[in-house]
Amino acid sequence: MAPEALLTDLYELNMAASFIRRGMHHEATFSLFVRDLPRQRGFLVAAGLEPSLEFLETFRFEEDDLRYLGDELGFGDDVLDAFRELRFEGDVWAVPEGRVVYANEPLLELTAPIAVAQLVEPYLLNQMTFQTTIASKAARCTIAADGRDLVDFSLRRTQGLDAAINVARVTSIVGFAATSNVEAARRFDLPVAGTMAHSYIEAFPSEADAFRAFAQDLPRRTTFLIDTYDTLNGVETAIAVIRELELQGNLGVRIDSGDLDELSREVRRVLDEAGMQAVRIFASGGLDEHDIERLVRGGAPIDAFGVGTRMGVSADAPYLDSAYKLVEYDGRPMLKLSAMKATSPGRKQVFRGPDGDTIGLRNEPIPDGHEPLLVPVMREGRRTGPHRTLETARYLFTGDLQHVPEAGRRIGDPQAPVARVSDALRSLTEETRAEALRRAGVH
Amino acid sequence: MAPEALLTDLYELNMAASFIRRGMHHEATFSLFVRDLPRQRGFLVAAGLEPSLEFLETFRFEEDDLRYLGDELGFGDDVLDAFRELRFEGDVWAVPEGRVVYANEPLLELTAPIAVAQLVEPYLLNQMTFQTTIASKAARCTIAADGRDLVDFSLRRTQGLDAAINVARVTSIVGFAATSNVEAARRFDLPVAGTMAHSYIEAFPSEADAFRAFAQDLPRRTTFLIDTYDTLNGVETAIAVIRELELQGNLGVRIDSGDLDELSREVRRVLDEAGMQAVRIFASGGLDEHDIERLVRGGAPIDAFGVGTRMGVSADAPYLDSAYKLVEYDGRPMLKLSAMKATSPGRKQVFRGPDGDTIGLRNEPIPDGHEPLLVPVMREGRRTGPHRTLETARYLFTGDLQHVPEAGRRIGDPQAPVARVSDALRSLTEETRAEALRRAGVH
Repeated sequence: MAPEALLTDLYELNMAASFIRRGMHHEATFSLFVRDLPRQRGFLVAAGLEPSLEFLETFRFEEDDLRYLGDELGFGDDVLDAFRELRFEGDVWAVPEGRVVYANEPLLELTAPIAVAQLVEPYLLNQMTFQTTIASKAARCTIAADGRDLVDFSLRRTQGLDAAINVARVTSIVGFAATSNVEAARRFDLPVAGTMAHSYIEAFPSEADAFRAFAQDLPRRTTFLIDTYDTLNGVETAIAVIRELELQGNLGVRIDSGDLDELSREVRRVLDEAGMQAVRIFASGGLDEHDIERLVRGGAPIDAFGVGTRMGVSADAPYLDSAYKLVEYDGRPMLKLSAMKATSPGRKQVFRGPDGDTIGLRNEPIPDGHEPLLVPVMREGRRTGPHRTLETARYLFTGDLQHVPEAGRRIGDPQAPVARVSDALRSLTEETRAEALRRAGVH
Repeated sequence: MAPEALLTDLYELNMAASFIRRGMHHEATFSLFVRDLPRQRGFLVAAGLEPSLEFLETFRFEEDDLRYLGDELGFGDDVLDAFRELRFEGDVWAVPEGRVVYANEPLLELTAPIAVAQLVEPYLLNQMTFQTTIASKAARCTIAADGRDLVDFSLRRTQGLDAAINVARVTSIVGFAATSNVEAARRFDLPVAGTMAHSYIEAFPSEADAFRAFAQDLPRRTTFLIDTYDTLNGVETAIAVIRELELQGNLGVRIDSGDLDELSREVRRVLDEAGMQAVRIFASGGLDEHDIERLVRGGAPIDAFGVGTRMGVSADAPYLDSAYKLVEYDGRPMLKLSAMKATSPGRKQVFRGPDGDTIGLRNEPIPDGHEPLLVPVMREGRRTGPHRTLETARYLFTGDLQHVPEAGRRIGDPQAPVARVSDALRSLTEETRAEALRRAGVH
């Protein structure tokens, strides 16, 4: 979907119109972060930044948009003229994709005149929240698979089609070997994987006819789906066809139903007895990280897993409690007063060290032995620094995952580390709260 | 997103290539249905048909697609030549959007040469599953709201951006009054709603200054967000500004946090005492159908609800157990043999009568007093019959909802009705199963 300026909420346009009419062009800094992790998550994997930056780079209202806003929604010509010239010319600091993050750590901080900073909120929240949700879920599959291959099978069940494209993208960041989604593979240059469906087998007079036809027609991808009628008969059929056609190369069998632990052991035994130790076993069918962990820990001889629906919608935690909060306006630190959802003021940085993370202020000195998580990625509306590829993100993820504590990595009942707050941020929060209470008194 | 033929799984392309190489152009009928309802759902609302038909009408491989399939994925020139000419020229029967459906009732049946019928599977499953998931969740909000207005607030938290567009679309089918999503409102001609955010209030020296500015700059949409500092002070400020500026017309206040039941009663009392009975109360903040039902049943004086994240991702049931199964090939009824996931063969129809639904065969006579749910919507690749608008879908939904039994409509612990199976379908299933068992023996 091409970036579109009207992918925003009406209230953002209302506010932007009012700010423009009043000449309130002061710089605002908004901080995008996740307040609390779902209880099923011990860490998050930052994702969604690259599409967000593309959106910001190309943000503009088209004439069609302006006509709609004027004719249908009644915005005045003065506002429409200002909207016509509006571009994103602000600065962005962000955590690169693939890095592990925790609750309250900013994923992205954006500084720009307040009108445009408001207008881009829904798009940024949507992309950062959704992609981080899926990357964090898929990363748990990677941990559970413990080195076995994973393939993204989610296209048919994701919540829409750009969701499917982005699921393929973020699963590649967290170490999936391939996707079944051909368009995503093309777009992001990912390995693509796929065999045959039960309907293929059913369209032939017999399973052997189907296997034979497939091996002849698609010699480069001969993985036989063996559970259409009976899995143990199916593997015998596959062995017979492999022998009959003297098939070589990457051969495999896929099991998509039944007791995968038991069936994979029997199928392995049958293959091994036939001297086919190199034929790989591929398992799929409603799997999530809990199933994969159980199979892997139990020693099921499965070489690769296809993972679909439950990963692709993050079924156990399909959203994150993300927020996009005003933390500075016109040079003044801001926070929201609320017993339930207090926020902390000012431009921030996360300092990561051997003893964990500290959330501090951006202008604090970096403590010895620590590295800052947020880096400048856009200045005056243009990207800065190196272009970050999916390889970069994979590299960052692999490194960061090593440092997640065991309690955060575990699949069952994970416990996420909690970042400390620096003294400087704590002091600023207290000062700003006192000031906000004074303002609330005047309201 | 423009329909794209590569939005498919690699295995579909593999199978299509093999079918083409073998000259297997026989007609296949696939049936798309939901096997079991999530336990939190007492009915489903069919949605996703219109985008699916648009995809089928325009289905074709572009030269770029073919280049990728040849150069990168190694498909042969004979296959690519056949792909180049491929169009969807089949027939489709489907349940119109907005109709209530239950488990195992086909939402869509498609008949076409098997290669193309396979290729379109992921797109159709994705759209039909996702949109039906959301329509069914949002319909429960409509029931809970019991006549009060609902507004879709989900853009920032849906799983991607075409998800947000389609959430707005299907919420309008099930009776939402408006959406905050401006692009969706433009695309589908929906009412759009929105006020201001807390950050707007915070950017002004005081809440009163912010309210005054907003009322002056956006005179057509004066709903004041009153919970930035303190809700009861906030409503007094709103009253003062309404008096000071002598505001007229559609006025409202919005409460986005705290105990909505208690706060709405106090806010109503204060407004009424000020003679402002016409000022509406709008509530939002993490609401789902359970919250709305509790507030409405408890008598909270809330006129409209903003519903976001939990509806927009169908948080308690983010996917449906949908399937796309081969039920007929080359004139022969088919079924999948499986203890767990048995399917029933043949082209089907659902007969709805006063005593409930019966799933039967498409060529059965319609029982007296019953109406068929599936109607022909595409013949030889072109749409047939009247174009169905969102108004049509809303009309169908409103009518069907009246006939959902109380146990299906209730918010807590719903029980979905189960469709009967006709004698003719039962006989065909037994015959086809016997035949399939014979085939499995030969495999």
